[in-house]
Amino acid sequence: MYRSRPRGKITEDTMDFLNSLYDDIDVAQYDIIGSQAHSIMLHTIGILDRNELKSILNSLNDIKKYDFFDVAVQEKENFEDIHEFIESEVIKKSGMKIGGKMHTARSRNDQVVVDMCMKVRDEINFICSLILDLENSILERSKEFVFTTMPLYTHLQQAQIGTVSHVLLSYIGNLTRDFKRFYSNYTRINRSPLGACAVGGTSINIDRILTSTLLGFDGLIRNSVDATTSRDSLLEYVSNLSILMISLSRIAEDFILWSTSEFGYIELSDKYSSTSSVMPQKKNPDPLEIIRSRTSLVHGNLFSLMSIVNSLSSGYSRDLQDFKSKIFQSTKMVVGSLGVITGIIDTFKVNLERLDYVSNNTFALSLDIAEQLVMNKHIPFRQSHTIIGNLVQKAIDKNYTSLINLSKADVEIVIKDLDFNDLISVEDLIKIIGEITPSNSLQLRKSLGSPNPNEQERLIVQEKLQNQKYREKLFERKNKLTQSLENLEQLVSIYSNG
Amino acid sequence: MYRSRPRGKITEDTMDFLNSLYDDIDVAQYDIIGSQAHSIMLHTIGILDRNELKSILNSLNDIKKYDFFDVAVQEKENFEDIHEFIESEVIKKSGMKIGGKMHTARSRNDQVVVDMCMKVRDEINFICSLILDLENSILERSKEFVFTTMPLYTHLQQAQIGTVSHVLLSYIGNLTRDFKRFYSNYTRINRSPLGACAVGGTSINIDRILTSTLLGFDGLIRNSVDATTSRDSLLEYVSNLSILMISLSRIAEDFILWSTSEFGYIELSDKYSSTSSVMPQKKNPDPLEIIRSRTSLVHGNLFSLMSIVNSLSSGYSRDLQDFKSKIFQSTKMVVGSLGVITGIIDTFKVNLERLDYVSNNTFALSLDIAEQLVMNKHIPFRQSHTIIGNLVQKAIDKNYTSLINLSKADVEIVIKDLDFNDLISVEDLIKIIGEITPSNSLQLRKSLGSPNPNEQERLIVQEKLQNQKYREKLFERKNKLTQSLENLEQLVSIYSNG
Amino acid sequence: MYRSRPRGKITEDTMDFLNSLYDDIDVAQYDIIGSQAHSIMLHTIGILDRNELKSILNSLNDIKKYDFFDVAVQEKENFEDIHEFIESEVIKKSGMKIGGKMHTARSRNDQVVVDMCMKVRDEINFICSLILDLENSILERSKEFVFTTMPLYTHLQQAQIGTVSHVLLSYIGNLTRDFKRFYSNYTRINRSPLGACAVGGTSINIDRILTSTLLGFDGLIRNSVDATTSRDSLLEYVSNLSILMISLSRIAEDFILWSTSEFGYIELSDKYSSTSSVMPQKKNPDPLEIIRSRTSLVHGNLFSLMSIVNSLSSGYSRDLQDFKSKIFQSTKMVVGSLGVITGIIDTFKVNLERLDYVSNNTFALSLDIAEQLVMNKHIPFRQSHTIIGNLVQKAIDKNYTSLINLSKADVEIVIKDLDFNDLISVEDLIKIIGEITPSNSLQLRKSLGSPNPNEQERLIVQEKLQNQKYREKLFERKNKLTQSLENLEQLVSIYSNG
Amino acid sequence: MYRSRPRGKITEDTMDFLNSLYDDIDVAQYDIIGSQAHSIMLHTIGILDRNELKSILNSLNDIKKYDFFDVAVQEKENFEDIHEFIESEVIKKSGMKIGGKMHTARSRNDQVVVDMCMKVRDEINFICSLILDLENSILERSKEFVFTTMPLYTHLQQAQIGTVSHVLLSYIGNLTRDFKRFYSNYTRINRSPLGACAVGGTSINIDRILTSTLLGFDGLIRNSVDATTSRDSLLEYVSNLSILMISLSRIAEDFILWSTSEFGYIELSDKYSSTSSVMPQKKNPDPLEIIRSRTSLVHGNLFSLMSIVNSLSSGYSRDLQDFKSKIFQSTKMVVGSLGVITGIIDTFKVNLERLDYVSNNTFALSLDIAEQLVMNKHIPFRQSHTIIGNLVQKAIDKNYTSLINLSKADVEIVIKDLDFNDLISVEDLIKIIGEITPSNSLQLRKSLGSPNPNEQERLIVQEKLQNQKYREKLFERKNKLTQSLENLEQLVSIYSNG
Repeated sequence: MYRSRPRGKITEDTMDFLNSLYDDIDVAQYDIIGSQAHSIMLHTIGILDRNELKSILNSLNDIKKYDFFDVAVQEKENFEDIHEFIESEVIKKSGMKIGGKMHTARSRNDQVVVDMCMKVRDEINFICSLILDLENSILERSKEFVFTTMPLYTHLQQAQIGTVSHVLLSYIGNLTRDFKRFYSNYTRINRSPLGACAVGGTSINIDRILTSTLLGFDGLIRNSVDATTSRDSLLEYVSNLSILMISLSRIAEDFILWSTSEFGYIELSDKYSSTSSVMPQKKNPDPLEIIRSRTSLVHGNLFSLMSIVNSLSSGYSRDLQDFKSKIFQSTKMVVGSLGVITGIIDTFKVNLERLDYVSNNTFALSLDIAEQLVMNKHIPFRQSHTIIGNLVQKAIDKNYTSLINLSKADVEIVIKDLDFNDLISVEDLIKIIGEITPSNSLQLRKSLGSPNPNEQERLIVQEKLQNQKYREKLFERKNKLTQSLENLEQLVSIYSNG
Repeated sequence: MYRSRPRGKITEDTMDFLNSLYDDIDVAQYDIIGSQAHSIMLHTIGILDRNELKSILNSLNDIKKYDFFDVAVQEKENFEDIHEFIESEVIKKSGMKIGGKMHTARSRNDQVVVDMCMKVRDEINFICSLILDLENSILERSKEFVFTTMPLYTHLQQAQIGTVSHVLLSYIGNLTRDFKRFYSNYTRINRSPLGACAVGGTSINIDRILTSTLLGFDGLIRNSVDATTSRDSLLEYVSNLSILMISLSRIAEDFILWSTSEFGYIELSDKYSSTSSVMPQKKNPDPLEIIRSRTSLVHGNLFSLMSIVNSLSSGYSRDLQDFKSKIFQSTKMVVGSLGVITGIIDTFKVNLERLDYVSNNTFALSLDIAEQLVMNKHIPFRQSHTIIGNLVQKAIDKNYTSLINLSKADVEIVIKDLDFNDLISVEDLIKIIGEITPSNSLQLRKSLGSPNPNEQERLIVQEKLQNQKYREKLFERKNKLTQSLENLEQLVSIYSNG
Repeated sequence: MYRSRPRGKITEDTMDFLNSLYDDIDVAQYDIIGSQAHSIMLHTIGILDRNELKSILNSLNDIKKYDFFDVAVQEKENFEDIHEFIESEVIKKSGMKIGGKMHTARSRNDQVVVDMCMKVRDEINFICSLILDLENSILERSKEFVFTTMPLYTHLQQAQIGTVSHVLLSYIGNLTRDFKRFYSNYTRINRSPLGACAVGGTSINIDRILTSTLLGFDGLIRNSVDATTSRDSLLEYVSNLSILMISLSRIAEDFILWSTSEFGYIELSDKYSSTSSVMPQKKNPDPLEIIRSRTSLVHGNLFSLMSIVNSLSSGYSRDLQDFKSKIFQSTKMVVGSLGVITGIIDTFKVNLERLDYVSNNTFALSLDIAEQLVMNKHIPFRQSHTIIGNLVQKAIDKNYTSLINLSKADVEIVIKDLDFNDLISVEDLIKIIGEITPSNSLQLRKSLGSPNPNEQERLIVQEKLQNQKYREKLFERKNKLTQSLENLEQLVSIYSNG
Repeated sequence: MYRSRPRGKITEDTMDFLNSLYDDIDVAQYDIIGSQAHSIMLHTIGILDRNELKSILNSLNDIKKYDFFDVAVQEKENFEDIHEFIESEVIKKSGMKIGGKMHTARSRNDQVVVDMCMKVRDEINFICSLILDLENSILERSKEFVFTTMPLYTHLQQAQIGTVSHVLLSYIGNLTRDFKRFYSNYTRINRSPLGACAVGGTSINIDRILTSTLLGFDGLIRNSVDATTSRDSLLEYVSNLSILMISLSRIAEDFILWSTSEFGYIELSDKYSSTSSVMPQKKNPDPLEIIRSRTSLVHGNLFSLMSIVNSLSSGYSRDLQDFKSKIFQSTKMVVGSLGVITGIIDTFKVNLERLDYVSNNTFALSLDIAEQLVMNKHIPFRQSHTIIGNLVQKAIDKNYTSLINLSKADVEIVIKDLDFNDLISVEDLIKIIGEITPSNSLQLRKSLGSPNPNEQERLIVQEKLQNQKYREKLFERKNKLTQSLENLEQLVSIYSNG
């Protein structure tokens, strides 16, 4: 439709290569809403009279009902993108005299950014609410396991005794920062580029503030080159998705490990497990594995997008078209992952017996014991560390699974070999080792943020309150948007019928 | 169908999250061929009798005619993947007693790798032939421009005088190496994993050599853990795609620059140009821009895949499922790009007038002149460089566009300021400057691989021959494959009817 | 020093492979400050008495004066990292009885995160101030070119007439959003992990709030697993660096293009240009090219880091060590790029003559003319677009460089061929074409954010004010930090001498 | 030294930003060798007489002895790169009259590619030999564990019984394909670009074949634009490094998991284990974790490099400079990783007792049992799968760790519930279950590539032979190179003294 200088058509292959109709399915509704606002504005500045506006709005109302998947299938040889298709439909319905005016003072270059911003701001709000839901599930499950001891790991080796809930609560820290990133991102996304036109604005006396307000934006991206060229806030969005996926992949990895036969700490619900086509005994954590691979896919998408705009000169280039599919795909993968992981959190079972066994057959209490030597015996920590390290070595040589199995003779030899008899008596050392059980160790833990049950309970309450607070802020933000778009709908309805 | 240990169904959301039916459309036919070969083998070792084989092959023949896009749409709530769907259809058609035997001694884990290898080997051959086609187009166009001077660039600044064909021929070097990478990759892809089973082989006395031969493979990936776990040859494939796209993106960037108003060296055919929705004068090189962005997308896909297998432990993990979509998408983008760029090469016009003007208004002959001082006046190159550098500075200060515009007085001052009067006389210098025209400069170029027209013509002939040779090797390879699959088809036909 | 359970030494090769001493040079000072605060806290809770504290602080004071580059070179076979080295030095100086107590209730796992947070918060503040400096340079230069017309581009084809300052101002939008991202990131970075210990906190009654305050943090990362595992805020930092580099690479690409012979719009200062070893005429924009490649390097670093934490289980893993070098390298590249580009902005010259010529020999006024047909002749935009598109085609066929060159006869034929005689008269059309000069076109531009000189001047004033405001907020933030660290220094001085 | 057109110096910051002297340390020796060959060639074509050649070669001999790390430290404010420095030193030593001739018919643009190719071909050969060494270690250790049963995993869940050696042997497949990729890559790297000059060749009658031969190349990259622009073979090299690292990271991940307390299958040598600064019991697999993170770093480097050349126009651009550091760093990381992992393979211990226990307390024999039902009872596999799946479910409900624990009553109920009494008798089923022990299951495995001990022994022999064959081919290739460079050295020695 737009071809005036180049003659004839592009080749079929090229049309197919360039075509974005399929990706555009996801923005079609936003594009129509944008055209509604733009047309109303054109009316207020006299480009469209009341009847022309009415006709255009009615055409748009009709188009709104289309199934854009069908459009993509059927029209992909005729139209490069949804913007061209919709304008062409309006012209078909309202005639060239009227429909031919809709695209006044507008270009696909600002139009596509408006569509993206409107879609992504909705996505941000949705993802924010899903994060809060996931946090809520985690907090609910945490309550159950405040006293359930398990080894904490560093380097995937048993490190200290903690609790299941303490690990679960650690996810909250990550997720809340994820939430905040998206929440902050929104303020940069929700700015209207409409009216930047192709790249240098327009000589038509348009009212950018009006369209911005009608569409629920919180202000303008003012400079017209910036508005049509820059994609930084969208990159920030995909970066945030990428970082969020890392948070989820950590949970996935923990749960995959914990549900192996070898760890055996948890069991996933059958509703979230797959099996094998040949091995009858298999119960596989496929959804968690897919969360891991989707993390990689989202990261690859981010890299693609960064690479597209790396060293791209000012002004719209067609390269930017490929932002659409990559952003929409990424969002879908993240939304899917959040849903699945929330379900898994809600339904996994903890193998209490196994955790109890492991907590009592481990050297993960070594640090607690060493710290008792510091506190009660005033042995410098570096020397306490040496004592306990050598006891562990002795215990392992004897195939023991815990320091408690050491005999008095064993301890004596170690202390003697280290020449540490003046630091501590064998009896005291054995006594201290005996006193530090897994549950005692939790009670002894003093530091803020430790797995001490009281500290955990404080944190659960505190995080619950914060979750509620964020939920309210998010609700307000969404409400404001809904209000704006309902107002626009009402205006459209008035002008359509007028 | 496979659920025996986990009870009940997975949730709908999870099914949707895990589902690969849509991606599997591209391997469905390969999967059926694989099942045909597997079933024939099962017959030869006595697991299937002649009638059972006949029944299964007939069922598979029916399924072969399905529209797998429709299958994906309709069955996505019932089946996780195409392997499960096909087996289930065979059982539905042939009954459990017979159909239930087809999956003997096979797992989805080896099956999915077989499917991928069969698909990718075809893709490799197709891409190889497209590269040779593109080379051919480049070579044909090169012939036209062996004498057409243009500036060559370094740092995007005019560097030396070359020719249009010399730059076009430079693409051949790249593309031939691309060809060789794919050609070599094929030898690692075309190995049969079938029979590796889940991860540890099978106690059924299967004949892996037979299925390998029936399916046209050149041998086995023998170790069963390797066969089901490793994806290195597929990564090599996507690396090769990524590197090839860089070759194409270089052509795209050259052509985008050359078709700006400012360079003005070439004009794309209208068949490969887009326009603007608002700016009536626009003729935009959109397909070339999309080639650039697709390069970024393929790179992102490679990163996703590398990230998926990074630190993945031995044995199939569900993460690997996401290889499918990324590889198929990448191939499509590369195939599309090769087609479009070949069309652009075939049809672009060169603006001879503009190139002539630019070649005569440039300082890109400076090196040629400096080298004449070396050759004819025995001035050390480093000093020749200084002389000409200072002359250029003088010319620019005077707003000249070429050294030829310098007056005798200008040259005198420069030589005097440098105190180089004993190195060369002003007259000689002016004479040399005057003699070096763009076309003379080409004739003077002596080195192998330079834009000297004779050298270019030699290279065109040589590359044409090489292109023909590669084409023949490729034909043989494809032929061998076709032969194998036709043999299999004949066997299937005999057993289906027998 | 820490080896108590594993016997003997690791191999030399392994030591070399694991060693981070060289990367640690950049955090050594922060590590010492962290140890000062930790030791003071240990004193307040009674682990260290006044004399012990004095001794440790004096040892630390000595170590502070070391050249850590030399340490890295000399000690790399003895120590894996700086934390081990510093503790070992303290023990050497203060003796095991005293020095052996410093590491009480602390692990390298929380220590390394403290160091990183302290370093990165300084980097953020520094980069924030460099961004504001760059903005200031851009705003200063913008004032000069408010009336200097140039073509704006889309698809690298001339699109509309704009001004040099309008493009420069477009960079401000990007950079301000970059600033905001870093400014927001800081609130997540400036949280103290100290006291999380290895992964599960400590049974020593430490005061995390005290160390946090002493070190200038705005609060805690409370949960101990979160504090030692999560790297999301650091990833956010590197994402922000990556996005900022894209902003800079866009400027670089614009300037590289504009300084080609073919565009010829600007000339870089010789201070920011390189030349060639063989081509005497060359003046190359090397620093801008390096900014482009550094953008790619920073992106690669981001993806390395994302890949490291992708699917890493909870608790510190040694993989995280590689965050250090990648983050420090990225920061250095970004700081270097900001400095260079600010210098280039400050010193580049604009070729006014060339810009004037190009602005008058272009079809970039087509949209302005089409809009006049809409405004003055009430021709629907889609038809105006067709009229002007056909005129451009006619002009190009005649080798004209502007619509103004069209004769009356040319226009007549076009209007007639389109059958548009009733829409507009040839005379009116010619008149309108004649009226739209480059400078008129600017004056006609009405939309907010357009290159209309008045609008530009408004924006310059507004951005200047905003720049000042951000500068003040940043100053406050830095001041608060300095204050805290000065307080700590004073405390150290009191306790060292006491 | 090269500055003739641009006046004055670049700023110090810019010099620092552009400087590659530090990265050039790694190519300095190659650069000198290249200059030797180039100078000898200049002599044969009459540009240098015998005395001039002698002088230049003697200067180069002197420079060869420099410590280039010191050069980088001391000269970084005076020289941008090593090429400039070396030429400048030659001129200082031999005088401008002679030294000023060395750079005739050469540019840094071809020089830098020569240096890279010479360095990378050595790296390829080195890495190839390290891969063969690693394979050898793996094969040696495999011999010990041909009968040592362990569970194989899919989805990290126990899948089938295999052996330790079977998994070790699976690494060989990967590594051999890695070897082949590098081996093939070499043929594209070992081509001489020297003589391509800046971008368009030279009018000096140089002999490219001579320099190529002197430097041990197998031929030319002929087209001068291709030779100076293309980096595809280097990207192929880094892709190969990236894929190799994935092979290593898989081994690392397997070994990290196997050395957890929970798996407990192996114990790393203390020489390859680290410990904790606070937890005395820790023995951490740090080197393996670093191999994982280095995998991510190499991947990030690959993407940086791909991003640099993505859409870069023809002709050298300064962006390409950043190839150097990224390639050298990547090589170092890969070489380090290969060394460490070979050491770990040589020294790890297997916990036979634990593996025996696990092999006898698992459901990983389920497939073997199901296959016996197929073979001996002719039950369709799909139904066998159902039977065994239900038995496993029953066993798990009863907290059994193996099917062998099921009572007759248990089996009866399952068969009855499935209504499968006509398929098999309870007695037969119990008998079959009882017969399938871990070691029986290995003996029953029939397929090529399975963990059947005979098959494994066949494979070890076969792989040993292949390893030897590759070693010989590699030796020949390296020998040829050494020969060429020794010839050059001899020539240099003759001309230096003559």
